[in-house]
Amino acid sequence: MNFDILMNIGLDIMGGDFAPLEAIIGVSQYLSENNNAAHLTLVGEEAQIKDLFRELNISQNNITIVHAEQVIDMHESPTKALKEKQRSSISIGFHLLASGKTDAFISAGNTGAMLVGALFSIKAIEGVLRPTISSVIPKENGKTGLILDVGLNADCKPEQLNQFAVMGSVYAQQILGIDNPRVALLNVGEEEGKGNILAQSTYPLLKENKHINFIGNIEGRDILLDVADVVVCEGFTGNVILKLAESLYEISERQNLAHEYFDRFNFEIYGGTPVLGVAKPVIIGHGISHARAFKNMITLAQKMIEKDVMSKMKKELES
Amino acid sequence: MNFDILMNIGLDIMGGDFAPLEAIIGVSQYLSENNNAAHLTLVGEEAQIKDLFRELNISQNNITIVHAEQVIDMHESPTKALKEKQRSSISIGFHLLASGKTDAFISAGNTGAMLVGALFSIKAIEGVLRPTISSVIPKENGKTGLILDVGLNADCKPEQLNQFAVMGSVYAQQILGIDNPRVALLNVGEEEGKGNILAQSTYPLLKENKHINFIGNIEGRDILLDVADVVVCEGFTGNVILKLAESLYEISERQNLAHEYFDRFNFEIYGGTPVLGVAKPVIIGHGISHARAFKNMITLAQKMIEKDVMSKMKKELES
Repeated sequence: MNFDILMNIGLDIMGGDFAPLEAIIGVSQYLSENNNAAHLTLVGEEAQIKDLFRELNISQNNITIVHAEQVIDMHESPTKALKEKQRSSISIGFHLLASGKTDAFISAGNTGAMLVGALFSIKAIEGVLRPTISSVIPKENGKTGLILDVGLNADCKPEQLNQFAVMGSVYAQQILGIDNPRVALLNVGEEEGKGNILAQSTYPLLKENKHINFIGNIEGRDILLDVADVVVCEGFTGNVILKLAESLYEISERQNLAHEYFDRFNFEIYGGTPVLGVAKPVIIGHGISHARAFKNMITLAQKMIEKDVMSKMKKELES
Repeated sequence: MNFDILMNIGLDIMGGDFAPLEAIIGVSQYLSENNNAAHLTLVGEEAQIKDLFRELNISQNNITIVHAEQVIDMHESPTKALKEKQRSSISIGFHLLASGKTDAFISAGNTGAMLVGALFSIKAIEGVLRPTISSVIPKENGKTGLILDVGLNADCKPEQLNQFAVMGSVYAQQILGIDNPRVALLNVGEEEGKGNILAQSTYPLLKENKHINFIGNIEGRDILLDVADVVVCEGFTGNVILKLAESLYEISERQNLAHEYFDRFNFEIYGGTPVLGVAKPVIIGHGISHARAFKNMITLAQKMIEKDVMSKMKKELES
């Protein structure tokens, strides 16, 4: 195995409902569409991977295969599975990441195991109270925003939301390309002082925070409008919103809406969900990920490394 | 003024963006479409009301007009306005309700003033920890569910959510006509033990509650599906969901979707939001209420009185 490459992205080839086939097609698409492709380390059943490469007639240039004889299933208990299946693709993927062999790790496998792995295998960025996961939001006017946390932290403290605001702001700027992103606190009313205890206590912190462009509270009706670029909330509400939004795409499909805007609620087109606040990019894909999602996740990991998003978050958080 | 009528429904004729005109058209529609109409007590600017009755050629049978020289505007501070504007239509409306002159009170005016009025002018049902407000949810399959709380209680205790489940269940049964309604806890995962501290602590109470048909946790993706009839959550998440759902109708209109399902996110068709857990029906309309919403709110108030929903809630809560 040769790890002496500048950028090396690890990918769990066994994770997801349509793995390994769709993962490998995604890899192939990524490699053929990028002149400046990163080296990829594919973790999974070696023989199966090699067979698919032959069948699909894909070159193994720029590819390292690391054999993993186990797979963590979608419904296994994350902590137990990570402990007991140390030869699983997710365990090995995190081991490669933690030891510096890879610079990022991607999987569409067991979400819980990916979260637990991200939290415990690699370090949090110095000063980060809690890492977070975010989701893009398709805006009605065609733009794309960010909402966080969407489920990693069901209970939050104001100081955590304040850090999510900074991390989301850096991500929106570096990855979504939004200049001076407008950060808003999700709330039940517009005025300062509204909301539950958490929102009431978070507002003053955001207002005082010099590292973000805080525009105040927004309400549920503003989420899909172009009112704010980064929407901050605890992971309970954020998770409910994200899953509700995902269901809109399914409904639009079943109802044959065939509408451009509702098509953008197909979250697969955005790839996966990065874990923010950990020292290296970890990207979690949907179980239903197809080739496009895998390709987009690899591209996202590359962009996060190239833009050095983690260092920028660290800098904004510490000063 | 003659209050010696069996059922007497109070209506703030000055509340809402299109009042008093749309309120009075709604009254007229209600009276003409009901053989068994309740007596209505209209509170507002007497001369203006009488002029409109003449202009629209509506009979004043079954109508009592109570003059109110003040109006609480949409953006006034609720507590301050109720204290200082005791001759306002909302203040007088609650006074009539509290003194037994009317059996229900409806307004599309200042929402905060309606909530404060409901909490402090009339009593809570014995044993109720906190009243709640709910919203119907249009299900993709054509059915209608209920979600509560949707904003009255931004912070909740498990015992409160447990009561919301009972009140929502009675309402779904009596008003929405759902037999043995399936009650679910909104959460970030399906299994018992998932969620934030509130959801984790609420689950066992709901599971033990003999007065409801508890089916477990549901996630954001299930809200618009026919998985549960009554969805229980704290008022922060519920409010965000409701306002997001309302925005879907506006988006569908702007995008010319013209789709039957998305048309059902026009919450005006359901009338208003009843405050549950107070001793008498109080119904809060949207600011943008048109005639149909006013008619539907009067019909809802009548149904709540006829079905004696409040007594049924009391019975379920105490035994």
